[in-house]
Order: sequence, then C-alpha cells, then structure tokens
Amino acid sequence: MVENKPAEGAEKQDSKKAAKKEAKKAEKAAKKAEHKGTNLQSQASNVEEADVSVGKYGQLPLIRSDTKAIQRTFTYVKDLNKTIAGNVVWVRARLHAVRARGKQCFIVLREKEFTVQVLTNVSETISKQMVKFASNIPKESIVDIEAKVATVGSPIASCTQQDVELISTQIWIVSASANQLPLQIEDASRPEKADDEDGLNIRVNQDTRLDNRVLDLRTPTNQAIFRLEAGVCHLFREILTKKGFVEIHTPKIIPAASEGGANVFTVSYFKGSAYLAQSPQLYKQMAIAADFEKVFTVGAVFRAEDSNTHRHLTEFVGLDLEMAFRYHYHEVMMTIGDLFTEIFKGLRDQYKREIEIVGQQFSVEPFSFLEPPLVLQYPDARKMLAEAGVEVGEEEDLSTPAEKLLGRLVKAKYDTDYYILDKYPLAIRPFYTMPDPNDPIASNSYDMFMRGEEILSGAQRIHDADLLTERAKHHGIDISKIAAYIDAFKYGCAPHAGGGIGMERVVMLYLGLDNIRKTSMFPRDPKRVAP
Amino acid sequence: MVENKPAEGAEKQDSKKAAKKEAKKAEKAAKKAEHKGTNLQSQASNVEEADVSVGKYGQLPLIRSDTKAIQRTFTYVKDLNKTIAGNVVWVRARLHAVRARGKQCFIVLREKEFTVQVLTNVSETISKQMVKFASNIPKESIVDIEAKVATVGSPIASCTQQDVELISTQIWIVSASANQLPLQIEDASRPEKADDEDGLNIRVNQDTRLDNRVLDLRTPTNQAIFRLEAGVCHLFREILTKKGFVEIHTPKIIPAASEGGANVFTVSYFKGSAYLAQSPQLYKQMAIAADFEKVFTVGAVFRAEDSNTHRHLTEFVGLDLEMAFRYHYHEVMMTIGDLFTEIFKGLRDQYKREIEIVGQQFSVEPFSFLEPPLVLQYPDARKMLAEAGVEVGEEEDLSTPAEKLLGRLVKAKYDTDYYILDKYPLAIRPFYTMPDPNDPIASNSYDMFMRGEEILSGAQRIHDADLLTERAKHHGIDISKIAAYIDAFKYGCAPHAGGGIGMERVVMLYLGLDNIRKTSMFPRDPKRVAP
Repeated sequence: MVENKPAEGAEKQDSKKAAKKEAKKAEKAAKKAEHKGTNLQSQASNVEEADVSVGKYGQLPLIRSDTKAIQRTFTYVKDLNKTIAGNVVWVRARLHAVRARGKQCFIVLREKEFTVQVLTNVSETISKQMVKFASNIPKESIVDIEAKVATVGSPIASCTQQDVELISTQIWIVSASANQLPLQIEDASRPEKADDEDGLNIRVNQDTRLDNRVLDLRTPTNQAIFRLEAGVCHLFREILTKKGFVEIHTPKIIPAASEGGANVFTVSYFKGSAYLAQSPQLYKQMAIAADFEKVFTVGAVFRAEDSNTHRHLTEFVGLDLEMAFRYHYHEVMMTIGDLFTEIFKGLRDQYKREIEIVGQQFSVEPFSFLEPPLVLQYPDARKMLAEAGVEVGEEEDLSTPAEKLLGRLVKAKYDTDYYILDKYPLAIRPFYTMPDPNDPIASNSYDMFMRGEEILSGAQRIHDADLLTERAKHHGIDISKIAAYIDAFKYGCAPHAGGGIGMERVVMLYLGLDNIRKTSMFPRDPKRVAP
Repeated sequence: MVENKPAEGAEKQDSKKAAKKEAKKAEKAAKKAEHKGTNLQSQASNVEEADVSVGKYGQLPLIRSDTKAIQRTFTYVKDLNKTIAGNVVWVRARLHAVRARGKQCFIVLREKEFTVQVLTNVSETISKQMVKFASNIPKESIVDIEAKVATVGSPIASCTQQDVELISTQIWIVSASANQLPLQIEDASRPEKADDEDGLNIRVNQDTRLDNRVLDLRTPTNQAIFRLEAGVCHLFREILTKKGFVEIHTPKIIPAASEGGANVFTVSYFKGSAYLAQSPQLYKQMAIAADFEKVFTVGAVFRAEDSNTHRHLTEFVGLDLEMAFRYHYHEVMMTIGDLFTEIFKGLRDQYKREIEIVGQQFSVEPFSFLEPPLVLQYPDARKMLAEAGVEVGEEEDLSTPAEKLLGRLVKAKYDTDYYILDKYPLAIRPFYTMPDPNDPIASNSYDMFMRGEEILSGAQRIHDADLLTERAKHHGIDISKIAAYIDAFKYGCAPHAGGGIGMERVVMLYLGLDNIRKTSMFPRDPKRVAP
C-alpha cells in the first residue's frame, strides 16, 4: 500500500516546484486514497468524480522507511519478455522519454542499459488526468509502474525489450527529477563514429559530462565501461590469488618522496608534513623481504605531474604486484604475461555484452592478443623503428609517438595488440632496477603495451643493500632519505621482480577509447578535482 | 649450475663485512668451482686439498638473472614429510637458527611459518670447512640447501615438520643477513598470554616491531594475520559480487572537506589545495544516483584525528558499500548483516590454520555469532545499560566504555560477539542521515559491533535534494560548499542506504587482538608515518 500520511520530510521539500507541479496536482486529487479496495471505495466520494484513477497515480511521499513499508515484488526491465506476457508486474525505473498523443501516453522506461515501452491509454479505468500526469513526469524521474506485460505486433526498435510493452495500471513518482537537465542522456549516448551519417547531431563534451557525472554515468556505455572495469580488478585479483599471491594494503601517506622528490603531492600531517605515495613500490618490496613471497595490491596512486594529456591522471588506481623468484626475473615477467592473457580471455568471455555496448557508441577494433604473449627485446624494437625511419639511441627511451609507431609495426607483423618489451636501457630506469649482468647498457626491466601505449612498467629490483646504495648514489639520490628503503634489504631478501599496472589505461586501451577520463569514474587531473 | 663469474654488482657490494666474513672465506676456497662434475674435477686441484666439499657450499653471486640461470626444482618446507623420505630435494628458506656441536651443525630452516631441521655432519663427502661455514651463516640469511629427506626416530618438537629432517649435501647463501638483528624473530614470536609461565621472557615492544617491520612481519603470527586480512577483503568482495554489487573506485583527493572540515588532511594541489577523503560517502552515493544500484569500494580512508588509542589510525582501509532499496532501509541493513555472517563463516572455515597460529601467541576466545544476526534497538540498549547502572541520555551517543559494557551484556545474554544496533538518535548522526519518519528523536541509522567495538557505521541517506539542504542548514553547514553533493540528488535518485567498515578493526576484533597496529601492515597514526 502507499503510505497515506506524507512524511514530515516530504512535506518540507516542496520547493522543487517546476518539477513537481503536475505531480502535486494529481496527488491532490488522489490524496488520502489507499490502494486497498475497501478504503478506495469509502474515500472515492471525497475526490473529483470524473477521475476514475484516483489512488492509481501520483507522487509518493519521500521513502523514509516507514514501518508500514510496502511489500511488493519488482521485475527488472531486463527480465521483461514474451515468457511473462499477460502477467501483471511492478517495475521501478527511470522515465527515459515520454510522449503524449491524444488519449495516449508513451513512456520509455530505462533501468541501467535496458529500456521498455509503457503505454497509458484513456479507458474505463484510466482517467484523462492520469494520462496527463504521466505525460508531464520530468525525464530521469524514478517511477514505480504497475502494468500488464503485452506482446507487440512488430518489434519496438527503439527499446532493448523489443518483443513486449507494458500497459500501465498504476504510475507513481518515487523521486522526481528537475525539469531542466544539464545534459540529455540521449545526446550523451549518441554514437561517435568517424563514418557516422548523423555526424552533425549534438554531442556532449568531456567537461560537461564530468561536471554532471551523475547523469553522464547513466548512459549504457558508461554502465558497461565501469562494469568491465570492475571485471578487470576482479580478474586481476582472482588470477593472482589462484597463483598463490597474497593481497596487501600499502600506505598512501609516506614520510619521504622516495623517487627523488619530483611530481609528489605534499600533505600537511599534524605539525609536520608528509607525501602521497607515487607507487606502492617500497611497501611491496618490504612484503617480499618479509617472506610473503608473492603479493599484490590494488589502490590509489598519486602523480603531481602537470600533464594534460589523454592518458595522464593525477590520481589513478594501481594494480601492483611483486614476486620472489628463484634464478631469473623472467619467471616473474612471464607470470605477468600469463596474467594479462587470462585477463584478456576473461574480458572477452565474461564481458561480451559490455564490449558490444561500448562498440555501439565508439568504433572499436576488437582487442587481439597472442598466447603465449609476444616478448620483444629492446634492441630489436629499435631495429624495427629504424627500419621504419625512426632512430632511437641505444640508451634512449621511446617517445610516445615512437611507442605508438612500434605498436602499429608489431600489430602488422605479429597481429597482437599486447606485447612485452624486455631489456630496457639501464640509464633510463629507476635506481632500484637490477642492471643486466652481461650487458652494461641494459637492465633487467620491461614495459608492457596495449595498442601501442604503456600499461605496465616493471623490473627485477635490486635486493642487496650494498648494490642498492651504490646505484642510488650513482643517481644522485640522498642516501639518508631512503635509509628505511635500503634497510629493508639488510636482513636477507629473496631476488624479486614485479610491476605496476594503470587500471584506467588497461580499460581505456582494451576498449580502444580515446581518453582516460572515460575510464575513471571521477577523474583527477591538474585542472580537475571535482566533483 | 652456479654462475662461476661473480656479477659486477656482487663484487662491488662487499662492505657487509661482518656478515659475510665466513661466507667469503668459504667462497675463496670454493671459488671458480662449478657443480658440473666435469669442471669440478679439473678445478679441484687449485684449492686446499683437505676440503672434500669444494663446490658444495659458499656464497652465491648476487642473483641477477644471468642468462645461464640455474634450472632447479625447489620443494617448499611445508611439503617436507615422510612421504618423500629418501628423496634428494632443494630447499630455499631462511636460516632460522643454527647450532654447532662438534662435527655436527644443526640448522633450523624457516619458510613462512614452517620450519624443518637440517643436519650437516662431517663425513667422507662433507668437510670440516663446510660444517664450519654452515655454523657461521648469519640468522635470517636466505640459503639454498640440497639435502636428503630422512625420517627421524622421535618427533622434532621444535619444528613444524616433526617427522623428517634434512641431511644436507650442499649449502649456498643466496642473500646474507647482517649479523646484528634489531629484533629476534624468536622474541617477536613468543606467546603473550596472561597465564604464561615464561612471563619474564623477553618480548618485543610495539615500536621496535614497527620500526623493523620487515623482520617483525616474518613471525608466524604476522604471516597468519595478514593472510587472514586478505581473506576478509576477498570474502567481502566475493559475497557482494555474488549479490550483484559492482566494484567502484572513488577519488582520495577531493575539493572540499565534505563533513564540516574537521579532521581532514590538506594536500597541496598544483597552485591550489585540496583534501584527502575521510570516506567515499559522496562518491558511493553518486554511483547510486548514476544507477549502479549496488556498489562497493575498498580503499584508503584518511582521518586527521589526533587520537592515540589502540583502535585509531590516521589512514586505514575502508570496506564501503551502498545499495538502492525499494521501501525500507532494513533491506540494506540485513544485507550487511548477512554479509558479516558469511564473512565470519568464511574465516572460520577457510582460515582455521591462521586463527590457530594467532591463538598460539595471543589468548583468543573464539569469535561467536548468530545466524541471522542479532538486531538491537537503541532504546533497548539504553535500557540494558541503565539496568547495569550506566545512564545514557536518549539523544546521547554511547561512550567507548558504554559500548564495551554493552558488548559484554549482549555476549552474556545472547552469546554473540557481533550485533547490529539500529535506530540511533538523529542528533548524533551526520546531516545526510534520514530522520525516522515516526519518531522525531530517532534516525534510520545503525552501527555494527564486534566484541563491543564499533566496526561499521551506516544509515539510510537522504536522497532528496531539498530535505538534504534543510538538514545541512540545520547542522550549520555552508550549503555552497556541498553544492556538488546536493546536486547529485536533483535528477532523481533511488532511496538507498549503506555503510563503511574499518578493515583493520574487523581483523583485530575477529582475532581478539589488543591493538589495531597489529592488523595494519604499515600503520599510520599521529606519531608514525614510517616506514
């Protein structure tokens, strides 16, 4: 039943006038009416005689968990289909679109990415007032609708539920939206493809989306992106847990800027100051020195880098792992390679629907990968680039354009969007990277790429305090500031390697999206800390 | 094979003199020797004739992933048992303890919480030099040992592997520890029980442990605590994922101190400043307003509170969830209640061994819980306390001692260490808490307790912008500062409720530990930001 005494809070919140005007009008008519047959009859005499739908529509009082709460089973929009045709169901969903035509009102209800058409027809039991009420409900309002499931003659092309429509018998507003929306879900959902014939249609720019993220996230594409992102984390953890890894949690507030002090955010910490961790590096390694053998951690990573690009965030989610090995860091590198293969398979098999939904809005070439993954050597990559006319010095890092070109060359030659680039020059890697024992120019380090962009950086770490000290000095690092780090290796430590993955980049590149802000729910960059 | 050319880095790192003196001496004798039978013979003439064990022991060069890396299968200490008696195995583990007796050397090897005895006897094939070398290896060094698995006459009480010992044939130091340890693993592992007869034995205080966390974490208890902690997170996520929740990631850097500005850390953010999130509250709710329906997030939470207690940290891991409901917040409250029941069952069933290990060091009464969980009403709790002589005003919060007393009263009456306390007074809850529709003093909010300490705080949230504005004003909050939060509810939002769980508290209280620093791998408090 509907609560017939509007709650205190509900009475006090009537300033949303524009949005609720029609609803209130209808509510007035329907006020005090109970759905219970007995009450309905006795109270019907108090209201306008012409309205045969009294008690069948209106604005519900604010749901405040009254002890007399309604008991009712709801059906999800996604479950509305032919098999339940003829049934009467309750649906709670958003009013996605509404259109009145004479004595009829067509509503499209949306629940996540699923939509269904609702028909409200003036009839012996449905009043003109009720149809008018329905026609005036603001888009994006949440409504409870009682309706009969009916099959349709021809498929409803504009809805995901094409075989059925709902014939409504009750319509209640649960939560009204403001009439003016800062962006239209329809615009935010429109395909953005190069060859799109509707190219002149209105689209929503990135900042408008992010400023109104609560609306923007309601699009089918965003629902799909963030479910798939949850899948990436889930797969990362499940696969590693099965391999014997232990999840750890590392502090974000740290005493010193471990990697030289650049690009680090400062935090006021009681009477002193501290920093935000740029990576869980030290702590993962301490967990190895503390015999956890194989560890991973998922958490926020901070970079105070003034980079305003499509792929940099000042705060992102790091999927980090570290693993003791026996004799060769390739034991770890290939564990990570296999991890990616399994993640890609998991996404392909378990998130097919999400990938399709995103593909409907953005042109995406399906992600290709090899099993086992391709491993390229840095000198060979330099050769491939040189043959394509781009010279990279033997102790030089790859520029972003060179990485992208290499990605295209690798794709053309090996047909894979994912590969491992092994044996980076020592000179361009952090001080804690293990030098190659056979080649003074090289190091035991690797990056991994998706569609030509780096998504993981990793290496064998120096597990010996003396060599670590020497290398830090070589890099001009003040040893006293990293004493705690060096000390971690004084009491015996297994050789180990690992890597850090940028979660948002993996999702962006797997789906072939053009901006990392599309895969961070509430992105942070040098110009944005809100909402 | 052992690499016979010491790596560059290994040669340069010889300052760890005290620790490596004996090792070096032995290495000198064994230098250039290869295990390969052929090489061994040809080079044996170069070294002391008396040493029949040349090439069977020494300090390995630093493992730098030489391309000629050794291929060898290792056996975990935990897998050493009677069924493989007679086998020759390789083990990589820490030297936990060592004792020389005449021509014998007894080593206890430790790998995680597992230990095994190794015997090295002077014989036709084992030299005096090799036994001396073994006797002088610093504790906590990591060694590779080749040995025959042998059954023993009577169980070895001091080791976890009691039925077998290892008869060593090769002993190599992989990573030497400094001779002087800032704490002894034995001391850090000693039982701390009230009725302990060895009460006068040396224990290690909390600060020494935390200052040397890499060593402290090697104790069996700490290995068990952090594996169980990983289990809490795993169970939390798995149970919720099965219930249809989606994992999200919320920003830690936020533009405004949402809950009034107290206890918040400030971050320098490029040319401006920002804050560290005290909870993912706003973002979880935005995800609900964005139709994700049920969400959870696991991540760092920051509190700039100058509380130096056994249960406060300035940075901890929040296990947060938020869920849309139909008509009553108890739909959510009981989902959380069931979640805890399932977590407790999962820990009891899957982490039996870890619970036992912790119980060997600390007296722990097993954790008891009811299914379904006990739900107490706030007024009833006040009555119980009043009967026990403690008066709590009807709009007053429970003090920490009152909470603990209530925990004991509940335990005595209902035999449960976990319960839900529902319907807190409105006056003591945050502004976004939904007021009770029937009782002006009460609110739709709850806390949950383990062993009399709060581990979750939650409520139905106000999902209406107007009522939210009114309540914020009532709390004296500057509306302009929370505009983004209020705006999230302007475009229709389902009624919802949720809660935030302190992960470290759950582990501390489940195991009955006395300090939250025992369940945070690298704890942060007002006096500690290191290591």
